[in-house]
Amino acid sequence: SSGQFGLVYQIFSITIATMGAGFIFFVMAQQNLSPKYRPAMVVSALVVAVACYHYFRIFNSWNESYALNAGAYVATAVPFNDAYRYADWILTVPLLLVETVAVLALASNIASGMIWRLAVAAFVMIATGYPGEISGDTTTRLIWGTISTIPFIYIVYTLFVELGKSLDRQPPRVQVLTRNLRLLLFASWGFYPIAYLLPVILGGGSLSANGVVGLQVGYSIADILAKVGFGTLIYFIALEKTAHDRSVGV
Amino acid sequence: SSGQFGLVYQIFSITIATMGAGFIFFVMAQQNLSPKYRPAMVVSALVVAVACYHYFRIFNSWNESYALNAGAYVATAVPFNDAYRYADWILTVPLLLVETVAVLALASNIASGMIWRLAVAAFVMIATGYPGEISGDTTTRLIWGTISTIPFIYIVYTLFVELGKSLDRQPPRVQVLTRNLRLLLFASWGFYPIAYLLPVILGGGSLSANGVVGLQVGYSIADILAKVGFGTLIYFIALEKTAHDRSVGV
Amino acid sequence: SSGQFGLVYQIFSITIATMGAGFIFFVMAQQNLSPKYRPAMVVSALVVAVACYHYFRIFNSWNESYALNAGAYVATAVPFNDAYRYADWILTVPLLLVETVAVLALASNIASGMIWRLAVAAFVMIATGYPGEISGDTTTRLIWGTISTIPFIYIVYTLFVELGKSLDRQPPRVQVLTRNLRLLLFASWGFYPIAYLLPVILGGGSLSANGVVGLQVGYSIADILAKVGFGTLIYFIALEKTAHDRSVGV
Amino acid sequence: SSGQFGLVYQIFSITIATMGAGFIFFVMAQQNLSPKYRPAMVVSALVVAVACYHYFRIFNSWNESYALNAGAYVATAVPFNDAYRYADWILTVPLLLVETVAVLALASNIASGMIWRLAVAAFVMIATGYPGEISGDTTTRLIWGTISTIPFIYIVYTLFVELGKSLDRQPPRVQVLTRNLRLLLFASWGFYPIAYLLPVILGGGSLSANGVVGLQVGYSIADILAKVGFGTLIYFIALEKTAHDRSVGV
Amino acid sequence: SSGQFGLVYQIFSITIATMGAGFIFFVMAQQNLSPKYRPAMVVSALVVAVACYHYFRIFNSWNESYALNAGAYVATAVPFNDAYRYADWILTVPLLLVETVAVLALASNIASGMIWRLAVAAFVMIATGYPGEISGDTTTRLIWGTISTIPFIYIVYTLFVELGKSLDRQPPRVQVLTRNLRLLLFASWGFYPIAYLLPVILGGGSLSANGVVGLQVGYSIADILAKVGFGTLIYFIALEKTAHDRSVGV
Amino acid sequence: SSGQFGLVYQIFSITIATMGAGFIFFVMAQQNLSPKYRPAMVVSALVVAVACYHYFRIFNSWNESYALNAGAYVATAVPFNDAYRYADWILTVPLLLVETVAVLALASNIASGMIWRLAVAAFVMIATGYPGEISGDTTTRLIWGTISTIPFIYIVYTLFVELGKSLDRQPPRVQVLTRNLRLLLFASWGFYPIAYLLPVILGGGSLSANGVVGLQVGYSIADILAKVGFGTLIYFIALEKTAHDRSVGV
Ligand SMILES: CC1=C(/C=C/C(C)=C/C=C/C(C)=C/C=O)C(C)(C)CCC1
Ligand SMILES: CC1=C(/C=C/C(C)=C/C=C/C(C)=C/C=O)C(C)(C)CCC1
Ligand SMILES: CC1=C(/C=C/C(C)=C/C=C/C(C)=C/C=O)C(C)(C)CCC1
Ligand SMILES: CC1=C(/C=C/C(C)=C/C=C/C(C)=C/C=O)C(C)(C)CCC1
Ligand SMILES: CC1=C(/C=C/C(C)=C/C=C/C(C)=C/C=O)C(C)(C)CCC1
Ligand SMILES: CC1=C(/C=C/C(C)=C/C=C/C(C)=C/C=O)C(C)(C)CCC1
Repeated sequence: SSGQFGLVYQIFSITIATMGAGFIFFVMAQQNLSPKYRPAMVVSALVVAVACYHYFRIFNSWNESYALNAGAYVATAVPFNDAYRYADWILTVPLLLVETVAVLALASNIASGMIWRLAVAAFVMIATGYPGEISGDTTTRLIWGTISTIPFIYIVYTLFVELGKSLDRQPPRVQVLTRNLRLLLFASWGFYPIAYLLPVILGGGSLSANGVVGLQVGYSIADILAKVGFGTLIYFIALEKTAHDRSVGV
Repeated sequence: SSGQFGLVYQIFSITIATMGAGFIFFVMAQQNLSPKYRPAMVVSALVVAVACYHYFRIFNSWNESYALNAGAYVATAVPFNDAYRYADWILTVPLLLVETVAVLALASNIASGMIWRLAVAAFVMIATGYPGEISGDTTTRLIWGTISTIPFIYIVYTLFVELGKSLDRQPPRVQVLTRNLRLLLFASWGFYPIAYLLPVILGGGSLSANGVVGLQVGYSIADILAKVGFGTLIYFIALEKTAHDRSVGV
Repeated sequence: SSGQFGLVYQIFSITIATMGAGFIFFVMAQQNLSPKYRPAMVVSALVVAVACYHYFRIFNSWNESYALNAGAYVATAVPFNDAYRYADWILTVPLLLVETVAVLALASNIASGMIWRLAVAAFVMIATGYPGEISGDTTTRLIWGTISTIPFIYIVYTLFVELGKSLDRQPPRVQVLTRNLRLLLFASWGFYPIAYLLPVILGGGSLSANGVVGLQVGYSIADILAKVGFGTLIYFIALEKTAHDRSVGV
Repeated sequence: SSGQFGLVYQIFSITIATMGAGFIFFVMAQQNLSPKYRPAMVVSALVVAVACYHYFRIFNSWNESYALNAGAYVATAVPFNDAYRYADWILTVPLLLVETVAVLALASNIASGMIWRLAVAAFVMIATGYPGEISGDTTTRLIWGTISTIPFIYIVYTLFVELGKSLDRQPPRVQVLTRNLRLLLFASWGFYPIAYLLPVILGGGSLSANGVVGLQVGYSIADILAKVGFGTLIYFIALEKTAHDRSVGV
Repeated sequence: SSGQFGLVYQIFSITIATMGAGFIFFVMAQQNLSPKYRPAMVVSALVVAVACYHYFRIFNSWNESYALNAGAYVATAVPFNDAYRYADWILTVPLLLVETVAVLALASNIASGMIWRLAVAAFVMIATGYPGEISGDTTTRLIWGTISTIPFIYIVYTLFVELGKSLDRQPPRVQVLTRNLRLLLFASWGFYPIAYLLPVILGGGSLSANGVVGLQVGYSIADILAKVGFGTLIYFIALEKTAHDRSVGV
Repeated sequence: SSGQFGLVYQIFSITIATMGAGFIFFVMAQQNLSPKYRPAMVVSALVVAVACYHYFRIFNSWNESYALNAGAYVATAVPFNDAYRYADWILTVPLLLVETVAVLALASNIASGMIWRLAVAAFVMIATGYPGEISGDTTTRLIWGTISTIPFIYIVYTLFVELGKSLDRQPPRVQVLTRNLRLLLFASWGFYPIAYLLPVILGGGSLSANGVVGLQVGYSIADILAKVGFGTLIYFIALEKTAHDRSVGV
């Protein structure tokens, strides 16, 4: 329906604007941090730049997929391109993992190993999610979703635990922020499987109007939280660490 | 009518120009401030960048919605997209709240809590205003408007009071500017509900020509005051604080 | 006629080029001034950026308004959009007032009050000029023009007198330049009402070919003088003040 | 004919490239000069930027004016827009005068007066040249050309003499360059009236193929010499002065 | 088929995004390195800029080569332009060789000689691979592929051995990274001949759907590893060397 | 034929990419050189910028000149524009001469005289080559080519000898590079007359398919060597001189 088309349309537009604003912010915010922490902002800038590129493609694909016909929107011959989102995740999820592990301030060989294990798990998670995503059949969706949730739990659990263990290595104020980061990671990443399930919950599978709308809106909000929100929290952690370093004379 | 179409057309064009000029200003003005206050300009720059993006979309939507027909403008099949404005507010209002709370120079945990409470209220305010906005029926408009005004009053009241309480913590010259800021916040934010009511006051509801014109013009002027005007005042406050810091040797 | 169309066409093209060159100049010229005076260049840069934007719109509107028909130009269905110019003034006149009052180097509370009074007068002047502008009838034009001239005289008189009084506060070399600035303000701002009257003087009102040509050419030349010329003189004043500051050890 | 169309086409393309390269050069070359001489490069950059803009318009106008028809080029309904060139001169000639007078290193009040007299003469020269330019009749062309040559001689004579007189005030190496500058000014500015006369000399007036080709090619070469060549020589003079200043400890 | 068209389409889109992100990274990452190692980032930036340009052309060529026809994609009259990839390699492979040899930190005359020998081998490898690439016949493909593999083995073997020999000249931490670099070089460059063989292995030659898909996907993944992955590892090596230099007081 | 069209098409695309990459390189590489040698990079940047502009025009002209017709390419009504190349040489050859003479580090009056003589010779060489280029007749081609070769020999001989004589004035490492530069100059410039002769050698004159292909490919490769290759060698010479200057305390 028109309202549903419009809602997804607006959400995509808001996400393009947020990713763009995030890019301007991460680039300009570097000047407030000591050089040691600036690479984190570079990584965040890359994440939102790649996301902004993909959301332009998603937005245009959405507009090509539906035409206004007597007050309601009907699908055109061109199918909506769901793959853009998964392509985006293939690039941005590893970058986010790099950022998170950096915050943990582990010894660099342990960090290396962890990034590789998590990246492999991320790849498996995304690759096993895709067949379920593009299938219109609920059973297929649930099967692939369950398989995908295994590496997902591995990643979120590992980072959650590690962020907790790292608290001891951080100055007090950074501890609070790191707890929040841990919470945001859990909440934003948890959004994805919930959004994935919405077509099942709302009924009708991923080809029904409700299903599509819930899916796209859910993923977009998750993306904003996981990319811009996450990067902003990383910024505040880096800001605190910069202040802390200065006060102890580093 | 042609005059009415032209007025809204011009107001949108002026707003695009003002947001663009504001962006150039906020980026270039950072050099005059000490590094401590520059993030405020970054936030203002983001606010007007996002607004500029949305006003381009609003301007184009306006042009697509009406066609010249025998000297007057009649609606085309494509409806004017009102949602752009609300989408814009979802992003810029929280950023403005962040700026304002920063000026209060509160202890950072109190500031955090306040930003969260205000942001939630802002979300409620915008979300409850939208159903009333898109309805052509006056009663619906007034009901939703009243609901929306509750969080609105909470936000404006909280900031008004806090800005007043912060005066003691500020150097003298900054006090004057902070009073003006408080006044501008009250006036510019107050514009929005008044503009919202214009279709009722002018009669004809939001689908009548007068209603639409009053609404769009009112919101645009409010946006210029609340985004560019507000950011410029924040700039002068930061300028004063920079001078003050230098004079006391910080 | 073809020659008249071409003249206005060229004038608009020249003005776009001049505003663009002015923007490049004001941005690059900042490096020669001490930081205290650079904001003046930022304001000038904003003024010409906004003017450049509007002149692009005016230039395109001119081309859409007239089509070549058997060697002469006749009006098309799309009317020439005169409002762009007034929209431009709404934004640039206050900015020019800010620049001029800054040059006066008054105590900042007096400066504040003056900017507000002048800005209000400017708004009244522009708002009362517009109805006369768009009317094709000479009597209406003269009535509104006279009303508009009242705030106009107030502004030009105030600035003229204040610039004169400020001479005592300025170093000698700056005095000469300030006198020139005063002269330029009087001359360039005086151009506007004269251009406004051209359709009456040349006969035929604002819808006759001569009237339109005289009007557009007159306003464009006035704009170049009042924006680029004025900003350049402000630059030289700032250059002198920078040299003076350095010589007295500031 | 095809060859003639192609020659003018190429000359315009070369001029666009040269003005663009000149702009890159003048902007990047500033770093080699001491701050005192950088404004000269800024002015040169403005000159070639404005010229580049106009040559784009001239190039496009040329392409719209002639269509390929059975192997030869015939004029289309759209006339070639000669006014662009004169519009360009109105802006760039005063800027070149400013550059030249700056090189003379005169006391600043004498310099001021001279710039004004020369600028007025330049305006008269260009304004009286235009009627002759657009007329197809040889007699008209010669009459206006003669009138125009009077201020032309005044300008070139004044600058020639003044450049000669300034030699005493310059260090030795700069003297050589200044003599060359004087020669270049004489040669490049002299090109313009010669190009102007080409339609008469080649016969056929300004509407014949030979006349048009000679005119456009001549003016373009003159422009490259007078803008890029001149600015480059000014650069070398500034380079020498920078070295000289450093050696005497300024 | 639609799925196959979509897979290649997505892979190309991902590669454009990765090359673009890589460019932003390599330019911004220079600030973290000491000036001695920054040219390595410049070379990497050039490599991904050239690759990004070519992938835009490849992406557009892919879209022009196939049209949607009753749910499946059929070839259009315009053939897919395979040469873009080989053109890209002609430029980027020598640049990557320069980067790798620089890491070896050999005496500069030995390095020179090696770069020349490797570059010649690279040229032969690419030139002899092309005839096989564009032929649809398996036998031709294998013959040319074998010929091409000879210089390929020479290059990979030389660099592998040299990287091994250079380990002694490197600080410990850089040794680990250099081993990884050696492994990445072997793995990513090895991808190319494997991708080349996919049309043979999957059957159907290079004109079958499977063959084309395997080929394009394989080459794109190889390119991402060999250009962005490689450059990122070079960055980490340079980062370590910068830290090492600082610790020993260089 | 299709293969031949594709080869020239690709060569032009590669050349655009190389000139673009060269521009990025020459601009970014300046930071590694001492300020004394940076102008050389500025000149190189101008050379490749102008070349990139012209190759865009050449590439587009090539595409407009031939249309796909039943699997082969036939000439369209629009002739391929050969003049672009000669226009490019008119601008870039003098700039390359300036670069080369600068490397010679001669006393500046001798350098001046040499640049002028070489520039005149270059102009004669290009001007006398053009009539031969555009003629389809072999005899004409050879006659003009021979005339053109006279100034060509003068230029290459002069620079070759001078580069040899300058070796004594250079530090040892720079000597090796200067010998290479001399060799590259001879080889790359020698490419041009050979490419010029290809239509004669391959038979068929400049209008035959083989002739055109050989010509365009030959000139493009020569351009890459003479502009990007040459500039890169100049960079290494400047790098060595920078290191040398630092070691002797300049
Ligand atoms: C668990 C699960 C999923 C998880 C997806 C996730 C966790 C995506 C994260 C994306 C991020 C963080 C993107 C932006 O940076 C899928 C694949 C939807 C499929 C079903 C089950
Ligand atoms: C009270 C009220 C409203 C208030 C809106 C406000 C206060 C919007 C503020 C927007 C800003 C500050 C935007 C730019 O930054 C609505 C939703 C119109 C609906 C009716 C009642
Ligand atoms: C007196 C007068 C007028 C004055 C206009 C002026 C003074 C405009 C100034 C514009 C500037 C300074 C613009 C650029 O920055 C009108 C409105 C034409 C109407 C009739 C009477
Ligand atoms: C004498 C003379 C002329 C001189 C023109 C000149 C001197 C133009 C200079 C232009 C420059 C310097 C432009 C670029 O910066 C005209 C008007 C052709 C007309 C006939 C007589
Ligand atoms: C062995 C071999 C090949 C090797 C290609 C290679 C090694 C390409 C490397 C490309 C790189 C490194 C590009 C990006 O920078 C070919 C030509 C496919 C043909 C068959 C055999
Ligand atoms: C000898 C000779 C020629 C030489 C051309 C040359 C030497 C061109 C050099 C171009 C450069 C260096 C361009 C880029 O910067 C021509 C005119 C083809 C014609 C026939 C004989």
